[in-house]
Amino acid sequence: MTRIAVDAMGGDHAPYEIIAGAVWAAQEYGVALELVGKQDKIEQILEKINNKGFRSDEGKGGKKNIIRVDVNSLDIKITHASEVIEMGEHPGQAIRKKKKASIVLAVNAVATGSSDALVAAGSTGAAMASSLFGLGRIPGIDRPAIAATLPTNTTKPIVIIDAGANSSCSPSMLKQFALMGMTFARDVLGIKNPRIGVLNIGEEAGKGNELAQNTYKLLEEYQGNMNFVGNIEGREIFMNVCDVVVCDGFVGNVALKIVEGTALMLFDMIRNEFHRNIITKLVGLMAKPIFKSLYQKINYEEFGGALLLGVKGITVISHGRSKAYAIKRAVKVAKEAFESEINKTIAESVES
Amino acid sequence: MTRIAVDAMGGDHAPYEIIAGAVWAAQEYGVALELVGKQDKIEQILEKINNKGFRSDEGKGGKKNIIRVDVNSLDIKITHASEVIEMGEHPGQAIRKKKKASIVLAVNAVATGSSDALVAAGSTGAAMASSLFGLGRIPGIDRPAIAATLPTNTTKPIVIIDAGANSSCSPSMLKQFALMGMTFARDVLGIKNPRIGVLNIGEEAGKGNELAQNTYKLLEEYQGNMNFVGNIEGREIFMNVCDVVVCDGFVGNVALKIVEGTALMLFDMIRNEFHRNIITKLVGLMAKPIFKSLYQKINYEEFGGALLLGVKGITVISHGRSKAYAIKRAVKVAKEAFESEINKTIAESVES
Repeated sequence: MTRIAVDAMGGDHAPYEIIAGAVWAAQEYGVALELVGKQDKIEQILEKINNKGFRSDEGKGGKKNIIRVDVNSLDIKITHASEVIEMGEHPGQAIRKKKKASIVLAVNAVATGSSDALVAAGSTGAAMASSLFGLGRIPGIDRPAIAATLPTNTTKPIVIIDAGANSSCSPSMLKQFALMGMTFARDVLGIKNPRIGVLNIGEEAGKGNELAQNTYKLLEEYQGNMNFVGNIEGREIFMNVCDVVVCDGFVGNVALKIVEGTALMLFDMIRNEFHRNIITKLVGLMAKPIFKSLYQKINYEEFGGALLLGVKGITVISHGRSKAYAIKRAVKVAKEAFESEINKTIAESVES
Repeated sequence: MTRIAVDAMGGDHAPYEIIAGAVWAAQEYGVALELVGKQDKIEQILEKINNKGFRSDEGKGGKKNIIRVDVNSLDIKITHASEVIEMGEHPGQAIRKKKKASIVLAVNAVATGSSDALVAAGSTGAAMASSLFGLGRIPGIDRPAIAATLPTNTTKPIVIIDAGANSSCSPSMLKQFALMGMTFARDVLGIKNPRIGVLNIGEEAGKGNELAQNTYKLLEEYQGNMNFVGNIEGREIFMNVCDVVVCDGFVGNVALKIVEGTALMLFDMIRNEFHRNIITKLVGLMAKPIFKSLYQKINYEEFGGALLLGVKGITVISHGRSKAYAIKRAVKVAKEAFESEINKTIAESVES
């Protein structure tokens, strides 16, 4: 049985919601768990969940209900961690100083083979640094990158890589990101022959900054090994013209957060419009189920987390605001990524 | 009376919609016009509009109606241009080769003082190149930049500078962009003491790539002359935490287009949700006016165009898809920018 290590102490709603999501996933997807954090706290929460279940709204807009989990029937290992890395700490310094931090020990669980993959909702920087330090790079990969997944208007999500691991990149790094993103889209998301695009400010080959121009050239040469479709403009990313968007981590992170910010603003505006008068309020009441269903579709919790690719192990980085449902989905991503043997495929394709 | 030169031949819906928007603006805002393009074509369209008016939907979602303009009562000058620069042409080469192109002659009209400001909806590259070449830079400004305006949830828009003129930038260029953006927000948009932020991937000073880090330092030193509020993350740009977002033209253009792409996708999704069955369709029918009002608010046509700042003249660059309403609004922006003497203020603040 695949075992997923979960940093029980990381995230705005840790440890309760993290543990709840983990056991929920264990029950639903048949995985074993390794919960890493303060042992007494974890045991206490597990007992409470076993006795009373926990409430989940399955993502905002969903139905709030009690989830029952038969905790005693699950394969759960607890690894005690006496320290926690907080959000404000410098990642590199923190992982060196706090050797007993939950994220460090969770990574260690994967490094030693005690677990198969890892889910972390705490400091992204600490999760990256400890994964890089504790798991090491896949031979041939210069820098790990974050592959984030966004919902689209079709049934397939779109992958953005790098979504924030590397602020400055070279064209050859972006070529490796393209390769890793392709493998992820194909082997984990099940997208056949994924289309790869370079995020740029125009369609033509000569457009954009030096990095985008040279990456275009590099991927064009590599065409035989990859379904490269050229430059992708910002307004096209949701238009089903490609499956994997390649960019440096600065642009990718800005892009990802702007999608989130735009969606939040629009929903806010819609809410305001419906609150104008008694008639619009009435229409709003009727439209509510429609928006709930839409919200569910675009909810970041649905996918659960971004994958750190390029390290020798599976690390799923969840949103800091993750509640139980998001963690449940993140565990699913971790399980599927591990079982797809994505790292083996990445190592092979880098070699060839 | 302020005279606005309009490139009648630029844009997907040129020349008809461009001319319609220009005369509409002339009537509504009391400006004189200089229409630059094929003379016979322009005269023909002016006559038609004078006799029959034209249809406009005032932005998608608005009411389609006939706009009447008493063309003969307006102060309109026609400047014949025998050539047009097409969208696919290389801007630099095209403006050198086609000396009789409408955009070149429209810029020339501003350079010689025949007109006070310019509106162009054709190739953005050609508008930039001909403005830079024909008008020259404001002393002290190294590179002109595009200031784009986005609607927000409040009554104030937000400015993104640079929205696409410069793919690679230095910190001192970004400092100049901040200065120009501040002047624009204050003198043209009427925002008191505008808050300036650097687009970045984290809030802390040390975050982001080298450009963002060094720009942060530079603006911090400059604090006394500017209301610098620090780094702004992508998800915050609509959250009323700053008025002017500073970034390089690559990131700014990607950001702008991703906002557009996200909004388009969400509206598409909402449409799909409402089309599910007879009940949702009914609710959708009732909700239609609410969405129309929302669409109007976030419609790019409402603002009309982005301003090219840093050149000795006013150039408003409109969306290629602009119809009459967007052009009308762009003429208003051109008029207000000219009358605010923004370039004089920019020159003075660069000096000090």
